[in-house]
Amino acid sequence: MTDEITISEDILKKVIKLRKSNTHKGNYGRILLIGGSENYGGAIIMATEGALNAGAGLIAVATHSINLTALHARDPEAMYIDWKDNKLASLVPQMDVIVCGPGLGTGDQAKRLLVMLKEKITPDQTLVLDASAIDLISEDKNLLPVKAGHLIFTPHQMEWQRLSGIRIEFQTDQANLTALHHLAQNNNATLVLKSNHTHVYSEYGTVYVNRIGNPGMATGGTGDTLAGIIGGFIAQFGPNPDTILAAVYLHSLAGDLIYQDHYLVKPTQISSLLPKLMKKYADLN
Amino acid sequence: MTDEITISEDILKKVIKLRKSNTHKGNYGRILLIGGSENYGGAIIMATEGALNAGAGLIAVATHSINLTALHARDPEAMYIDWKDNKLASLVPQMDVIVCGPGLGTGDQAKRLLVMLKEKITPDQTLVLDASAIDLISEDKNLLPVKAGHLIFTPHQMEWQRLSGIRIEFQTDQANLTALHHLAQNNNATLVLKSNHTHVYSEYGTVYVNRIGNPGMATGGTGDTLAGIIGGFIAQFGPNPDTILAAVYLHSLAGDLIYQDHYLVKPTQISSLLPKLMKKYADLN
Amino acid sequence: MTDEITISEDILKKVIKLRKSNTHKGNYGRILLIGGSENYGGAIIMATEGALNAGAGLIAVATHSINLTALHARDPEAMYIDWKDNKLASLVPQMDVIVCGPGLGTGDQAKRLLVMLKEKITPDQTLVLDASAIDLISEDKNLLPVKAGHLIFTPHQMEWQRLSGIRIEFQTDQANLTALHHLAQNNNATLVLKSNHTHVYSEYGTVYVNRIGNPGMATGGTGDTLAGIIGGFIAQFGPNPDTILAAVYLHSLAGDLIYQDHYLVKPTQISSLLPKLMKKYADLN
Amino acid sequence: MTDEITISEDILKKVIKLRKSNTHKGNYGRILLIGGSENYGGAIIMATEGALNAGAGLIAVATHSINLTALHARDPEAMYIDWKDNKLASLVPQMDVIVCGPGLGTGDQAKRLLVMLKEKITPDQTLVLDASAIDLISEDKNLLPVKAGHLIFTPHQMEWQRLSGIRIEFQTDQANLTALHHLAQNNNATLVLKSNHTHVYSEYGTVYVNRIGNPGMATGGTGDTLAGIIGGFIAQFGPNPDTILAAVYLHSLAGDLIYQDHYLVKPTQISSLLPKLMKKYADLN
Repeated sequence: MTDEITISEDILKKVIKLRKSNTHKGNYGRILLIGGSENYGGAIIMATEGALNAGAGLIAVATHSINLTALHARDPEAMYIDWKDNKLASLVPQMDVIVCGPGLGTGDQAKRLLVMLKEKITPDQTLVLDASAIDLISEDKNLLPVKAGHLIFTPHQMEWQRLSGIRIEFQTDQANLTALHHLAQNNNATLVLKSNHTHVYSEYGTVYVNRIGNPGMATGGTGDTLAGIIGGFIAQFGPNPDTILAAVYLHSLAGDLIYQDHYLVKPTQISSLLPKLMKKYADLN
Repeated sequence: MTDEITISEDILKKVIKLRKSNTHKGNYGRILLIGGSENYGGAIIMATEGALNAGAGLIAVATHSINLTALHARDPEAMYIDWKDNKLASLVPQMDVIVCGPGLGTGDQAKRLLVMLKEKITPDQTLVLDASAIDLISEDKNLLPVKAGHLIFTPHQMEWQRLSGIRIEFQTDQANLTALHHLAQNNNATLVLKSNHTHVYSEYGTVYVNRIGNPGMATGGTGDTLAGIIGGFIAQFGPNPDTILAAVYLHSLAGDLIYQDHYLVKPTQISSLLPKLMKKYADLN
Repeated sequence: MTDEITISEDILKKVIKLRKSNTHKGNYGRILLIGGSENYGGAIIMATEGALNAGAGLIAVATHSINLTALHARDPEAMYIDWKDNKLASLVPQMDVIVCGPGLGTGDQAKRLLVMLKEKITPDQTLVLDASAIDLISEDKNLLPVKAGHLIFTPHQMEWQRLSGIRIEFQTDQANLTALHHLAQNNNATLVLKSNHTHVYSEYGTVYVNRIGNPGMATGGTGDTLAGIIGGFIAQFGPNPDTILAAVYLHSLAGDLIYQDHYLVKPTQISSLLPKLMKKYADLN
Repeated sequence: MTDEITISEDILKKVIKLRKSNTHKGNYGRILLIGGSENYGGAIIMATEGALNAGAGLIAVATHSINLTALHARDPEAMYIDWKDNKLASLVPQMDVIVCGPGLGTGDQAKRLLVMLKEKITPDQTLVLDASAIDLISEDKNLLPVKAGHLIFTPHQMEWQRLSGIRIEFQTDQANLTALHHLAQNNNATLVLKSNHTHVYSEYGTVYVNRIGNPGMATGGTGDTLAGIIGGFIAQFGPNPDTILAAVYLHSLAGDLIYQDHYLVKPTQISSLLPKLMKKYADLN
């Protein structure tokens, strides 16, 4: 049986560093978030708020044009591009991290975007695949953007069942590691398997488990927000395993703080709390 | 004369349970809210905020396309579907609760939606009928979606006059119970008759009265918000009478707390207060 | 020389009454606000927020369709109607108070709206004329809706110059009273002449002066907000002079409280503060 | 070597005066902000919030029509004009200050706007050139609106490299002063060269350095916000060097206060803090 390492609060101190004085926004990474169909615009907004409040330097959002105004009414900090705009393909190579999936849907345009990503992404970029992006790849493995330097999958258990072929009740650590290895092949790959105790699997066989979090977070958008936070952390702190663990832990920690006096935890509340929480851990350095 | 049972604070402790650790958003119900014409988009937004802040697991909103952006600018947690989209009919069967009426209007599209609901709704679903949905059924009783497992009517007194044929001054408990029985026939049905002291009538002859609340709540949108809260509670706590009583009581309790230092109680303030209030009662368990 | 009566804090206690328990939103008046052209949508939003936070029972807003979404993103409590919609004419007679002018502009549509108002308004309604509505009437006195039961003009000094023909330096109390009398003819009419010490002139020769307020309020939208508050107060407290005085005083009082620790007073802050302030004075009864 | 004068807190007391009682919005200046293409609407919103919260009396925003609703949902105080509207050219001469550049982009419309500005601007107006406006002028020096009474350039180091031809590593005070002199010719001109320690160069050879600020401000939109604050200050306090220094210092000071307990400083937070900060310094007079 595979050992599980419990993610602890220490990871926050380790990853979240005080920023150096002589830096500019370019030092904190460029992130592109792709998602938000006609029906699921809120998902890409919530992912964007995760990335923004996690501290990404520059944020661009590719989404259905119907979602522009709600995005900017909430988050003027994000740049916008219509996901049908041909210029999107030339934007991709300028990014450090790409998060694809929140509210993406499974329509033709979503597929076209994955095909474009597969073609344009490069080995010095990290790709976070979430939600419907995972479902599309489940249906057609050829859509996986294998050229990415680092692939991070953030499915919940049912999405992982569809992607890995492993039914939920058989999703053991060993089975998950094997499936991840098979899926990612020659890539650096990490699986963030969301559940009430999210597990993080590295391609090299290590398994981490997040034992904090709470059932008030059982609401639509929590996962979208996590994908955004992971992206925002990688933009700043680099695509190493600790970064991902810190993002997962911080997301739950924020949720737990909110849950102390709220029956439910709205995903946008989690994002709003991040800057204060991160400061606390940065100051511990 | 029918006995009236006063709804008390105890109902909140009884209904609002601490969430169990091993749960996910699917455990807290799927709710669809239908409403929001060109003129009354705010009503469906306020109903949505009621359901969201009451803790429903997954929320979809079917509304006129003109209302999408304001909805998402406020509530990215809600999924959206154009109420003219043919896919709406296939969404209905996936839901646990449907709230139809806030800002619906009485136009042709509103009627088409009721016809669709009547056809698609099933005995394992609860339907909350509010505002213009009630008016449309008043005009044509054939529009009543009789196949719903549980019907909840949430009219104010004038809407109930139109639906039941009982003029306001003759809306006695006995008359209301008889009319509800006649209206609902073979359905489980509950009447939430909104007034300064809202009465809840169960089909089996019990009458509950809510003696809290305040005249600062006498403003447009209070009723829409209540319909959303009832829906959100049923999504989580099931379609039993206690759930409805708790929703009615909590809505007024929140209003009373706000009224302590506000001359008027904005419906959106009520919704914002729910997560903290619910936590308090859940912690009493 | 005409005596000036200083408006004092007492007017708030006198006008703002605790609401009675057995009331509903219909008891707090129906108000229609008309304004917001393509360029000045913010003005009608700010007027709406004044009326809403002052406690009007039901609020409808007729504006250019371009302004719908921003209005609802901020204020879902307000109903909306496209100002080009023919149904607007039939909405007018259902209202207790109409505020026309904030952001109205002076285009053809604005004129058409005044012509419609002139035709539809009735002696049991109050009409508040503000901003561009005043300018349009300055250009063509025939546009004045003389059938209104009560006319309230809320110009700043330059708008009053254009309407009355009295240049700012000659706007003495006596001159203003004479001009108001001439203008209003057989109507109840009040002039709220906005300046750093706003004067209120009743048709019967009484002059009130508001000696509070501050230069932090010297920003775009303050006047629109006042027009909305006046409308909201009349909806609730009736079209008598005290109501208008209370609205003028409260608007400045809120501004003074904000100014204590803000260099500038944003109009939307004034509106947000009203419910708490009004509660304080209602509790003094 | 050129002496650098450190900007100190004293500049805030000197510039930010308590407003006089007998003033109106016209006393606090009229500002027009031009920017916000299809992709960068958030930038012009953030600049607007800078100008608004800095206390400009009247604010107009010329932007792509796609950005109207998000602007008004956040900032109803701002007037709007479609940047393709021919009336914009006649609006320009009515302004005290024009800020051109935030989110402007470098498309054909952006160029047309600069050409229009060049033609319409007059010697009694101040023009703040930011972001893409600087890039466009870098490509074609003929686009510089030389008739402006005061020109303020607010590039970051890379934009200044493109405009001045001086590579970042050679951007010494002396080189920058020479380039500014060459660029501005017969104009009053100021260079606000944004970096982690922003330098302000007056055409007359004085160099000021801002030693406060923090790396939490290294995020998209910080510069747009600064451009708006500079514009808002000039609108109120006049186009003299102290005004610019105070704006630069206040922007960083607000950022430092937020950074005390936030890991990152969102530009919109800076703007929100301005009214309280300004009041504090005005009260010191």
